[in-house]
Amino acid sequence: VELVNRTVAAIRPPDADARQAATDRQGRLTKPPGSLGRLEDLSVRLAGLAGRCPPPVPEPAVVAVFAADHGVHAAGVTPWPQEVTAQMVANMRAGGAVVNAFARQVGAAVRTVDVGVAVPLPPGDDLVAAKVRPGTADLSDGPAMTRAEAVAAVEVGIRVATDLVRDGYRLLVTGDMGIANTTASAALIAAFTGAPAAETTGRGTGVDDAMLAHKTDVVRRALDRHQPDPADPLGVLAAVGGLEHAALAGFVLGGAAARVPVVLDGVIAGAAALAAVALAPDARAACVAGHRSADAGHGAALRTLALEPLLDLGLRLGEGTGALLAVPLVQAAARTLGEVATFDDTDVSPGPNVTN
Amino acid sequence: VELVNRTVAAIRPPDADARQAATDRQGRLTKPPGSLGRLEDLSVRLAGLAGRCPPPVPEPAVVAVFAADHGVHAAGVTPWPQEVTAQMVANMRAGGAVVNAFARQVGAAVRTVDVGVAVPLPPGDDLVAAKVRPGTADLSDGPAMTRAEAVAAVEVGIRVATDLVRDGYRLLVTGDMGIANTTASAALIAAFTGAPAAETTGRGTGVDDAMLAHKTDVVRRALDRHQPDPADPLGVLAAVGGLEHAALAGFVLGGAAARVPVVLDGVIAGAAALAAVALAPDARAACVAGHRSADAGHGAALRTLALEPLLDLGLRLGEGTGALLAVPLVQAAARTLGEVATFDDTDVSPGPNVTN
Repeated sequence: VELVNRTVAAIRPPDADARQAATDRQGRLTKPPGSLGRLEDLSVRLAGLAGRCPPPVPEPAVVAVFAADHGVHAAGVTPWPQEVTAQMVANMRAGGAVVNAFARQVGAAVRTVDVGVAVPLPPGDDLVAAKVRPGTADLSDGPAMTRAEAVAAVEVGIRVATDLVRDGYRLLVTGDMGIANTTASAALIAAFTGAPAAETTGRGTGVDDAMLAHKTDVVRRALDRHQPDPADPLGVLAAVGGLEHAALAGFVLGGAAARVPVVLDGVIAGAAALAAVALAPDARAACVAGHRSADAGHGAALRTLALEPLLDLGLRLGEGTGALLAVPLVQAAARTLGEVATFDDTDVSPGPNVTN
Repeated sequence: VELVNRTVAAIRPPDADARQAATDRQGRLTKPPGSLGRLEDLSVRLAGLAGRCPPPVPEPAVVAVFAADHGVHAAGVTPWPQEVTAQMVANMRAGGAVVNAFARQVGAAVRTVDVGVAVPLPPGDDLVAAKVRPGTADLSDGPAMTRAEAVAAVEVGIRVATDLVRDGYRLLVTGDMGIANTTASAALIAAFTGAPAAETTGRGTGVDDAMLAHKTDVVRRALDRHQPDPADPLGVLAAVGGLEHAALAGFVLGGAAARVPVVLDGVIAGAAALAAVALAPDARAACVAGHRSADAGHGAALRTLALEPLLDLGLRLGEGTGALLAVPLVQAAARTLGEVATFDDTDVSPGPNVTN
């Protein structure tokens, strides 16, 4: 756990001076004060994280898709066959998934990471091979993984984030692929927020009423069995998490330690961010909620994280798709502080509420 | 009015076959059916407008900022001096306004159009000089302009749209600049939707409670005085509109006639789109609501247009800023149909709800 501890220790609070400078500068830009709504708050957060105003435009962006399988698949919590995880990784490597199309749209790179797919994947430069184990055990039947495995998966995420920042990326985007991973997400969100399983368990990528009732029951019984302690985030991840959740928690920590913003996708990223923030509360300052997933559990996660999502388009796909669509918004928020003229440097008459 | 009539006559309904093909194709893409939420509906609309599936990705984008002044400024409806219109046009031409920063973010060009600024503007390649008159008359005291002037302004918008499409742009974005233009918007929205002035009049770029009450009263009295008839859209524009509203209505018509999507910004664009749709109901198929403005009147306009905005970030700046932020979403929606693999062309196992 040395890498985890070292990373957690490196995460510092946002810079109050840079935040104040950003707030002041928003009031001097050639526009009515407050007229950029939530993008003004976001620009202030980016300045605080970067430690300077104006903050750099966070680019280029990269989405890291952490792929893994889930033993709880055997409990009948999804209509999709488990092989789809590996098939979709192949689809992503071929550039044919929605995550690829959206990444092209927003100018983001895609990195696919095998942190625990059940079957061996063909090696290649287009895959980060970091399998901790070939899928988790069935969390409804015992712990999903050992504590050491959870730590190893968190460290995979930290290393991926650190490597991407070293390679020059300045905006990290969470992605995930793993059939049945909304079940583990529901258990994690319940464990970290205290919300009941009925509130945190959603339809994932499409389960019917009967399967939703069963899935909720699986989550409830897993929580009863493991009694996960939110004060021990690594223990919670080991008991009811997924390998991609653990890796994503590490990815958030790695971004936060490097003071690089991390755009969170949906319910899987929300569950992972709860684990990251439980390990390092100041990691929250690096997190930007990309969108509100249509999956039920996401709301509870966002409330506890105190993050308001940028988009709300009814997406429930995962892969990082919703977060990618938010990338231009995050970059645009930073651009306002760096590129928009102030009343001081133009002839524009300030409005009556503006004091120079 | 020949150009207006010819443009209206050229606007045809969306292509039902292309819409159906897009709906079918969304169900065969390698993702759970429906998991892209509202972007799936948007992709179907884009296919219907383009008349083919997959539709082309609508790029490059361009925002046309129609600038004009308003005689109703004299009635005390805004705390901003009227000179700010011309000053902000200069700021935009220098690249220093928020619209410029956001256009750079999403890869859109900016065209600034003087359709009625009160003062002469320095000529240049970076300005479309198409002043119909130097600002409207005070709509609280008489008609804002003559019917012939309204027609001329609509024709300016048609020509700008047509020229931009001829130059290769395939996504048109509405922009506007005009101190006091939310007052004319409130009157137009009330006239076209039947909503009362109290519902359509908002705080614009920042008026206090007393000024809001006065502004609402100005709008109410103007409606009482002019009794604008929504069945005569050009008459409504002449009575209570602005030159940029009329031009934007033409811009929507021009885009619709060319079957190029038009992303609407906030309350000014909403008011103008109501006029366009009153002239040509099928123009609605070309309209995409970029965002929900924080200004009060926008909701009534969107309801009557039956458009659901893509973004809701509390923006109330205008200039085209909210619409520009939606550009990547529109392009991403089109990309799903053109770039994402189907279950037929991959090894991905379709989910149980998918029939091949």
